[in-house]
Amino acid sequence: MEEYEVTREQTETTIATNKIFSGKVISLQVDTVLLPDGTEATRELVKHPGAAAVIALVDQKLVVVEQYRKPLEKMQIEIPAGKLDPGEDAQTAAARELEEETGYIATELQLYRVFATSPGFADEWIHLYIAKDVTSGQQQLDEDEFLNVFTITLEEAEAYIANGRIGDAKTLLAVLAWKQYLATGKWQ
Amino acid sequence: MEEYEVTREQTETTIATNKIFSGKVISLQVDTVLLPDGTEATRELVKHPGAAAVIALVDQKLVVVEQYRKPLEKMQIEIPAGKLDPGEDAQTAAARELEEETGYIATELQLYRVFATSPGFADEWIHLYIAKDVTSGQQQLDEDEFLNVFTITLEEAEAYIANGRIGDAKTLLAVLAWKQYLATGKWQ
Repeated sequence: MEEYEVTREQTETTIATNKIFSGKVISLQVDTVLLPDGTEATRELVKHPGAAAVIALVDQKLVVVEQYRKPLEKMQIEIPAGKLDPGEDAQTAAARELEEETGYIATELQLYRVFATSPGFADEWIHLYIAKDVTSGQQQLDEDEFLNVFTITLEEAEAYIANGRIGDAKTLLAVLAWKQYLATGKWQ
Repeated sequence: MEEYEVTREQTETTIATNKIFSGKVISLQVDTVLLPDGTEATRELVKHPGAAAVIALVDQKLVVVEQYRKPLEKMQIEIPAGKLDPGEDAQTAAARELEEETGYIATELQLYRVFATSPGFADEWIHLYIAKDVTSGQQQLDEDEFLNVFTITLEEAEAYIANGRIGDAKTLLAVLAWKQYLATGKWQ
């Protein structure tokens, strides 16, 4: 791994920041950076508060929500997820989003992965949890949220991946991890 | 699946579009939409040309690139990927990015998954391919690209996931799929 040590120094130093937009979900800025060879480049950066998502199994079926995704202009079936509130830690957000969106409550949430969704242009990190001992609670949607909650088998999940009704990164990861869990008994 | 048919109607109708920014990678607009209950809401939408990414194995090791990711302010190890050029189809982009970034050439590229990275605010779709019969070619980086290319074993990949040097959605998906391929002999 000698090569790694060399590239370790290749940071991009910010020399100017141009704030373009600040919204309710994201903000946008364009940074001018100094590249490793001393030349300048611009980087378009979407700032996002981060999100939490949950793999919750009820009677060996996966809890999913279906909603219209405006950026994709279509309905999508996804695992429950939502952005972090200001100052909120990811596990609290995971528990909150699971209950608000689906009405289910988890006794325990185990962190499975933390990942960046679009490292080329965004700083969004999704904290993906596995819910343990899932029981029924009370759904409480945000006023601009319209979604449908149901549970699906692995076979249904794979059929939805094949026909495009499931098609986002976190849910694909969740289904692959679930499949591996069923085959090995471990979340790995 | 009766519930699905009900939510099928829950589209959000665009009644105004406010274009905020148009850059070299992304653009940003804020749409005003009509919700299913007739009320209005705004949606912050990042437009992206889409990307292609490649799972390429050489001598049973995964080809990866390591680069500084300005949005995350750190180095990341990822599978080769890049955005689609205007009018370019995803498979052509996958072949091009693999060769440009890593110097490897694939005789055949098989589509594994197409997924949205951030369906809440972006329309980026990543087309993830599996490279077959990988041979050596000629690396040709873009002028603002500085990256290091190497190959890693599954064990190294899992160690890098554990310590955060691998931490983006497409690479996590690739490693999980690879692990399942090694266990079952199938990309599934």
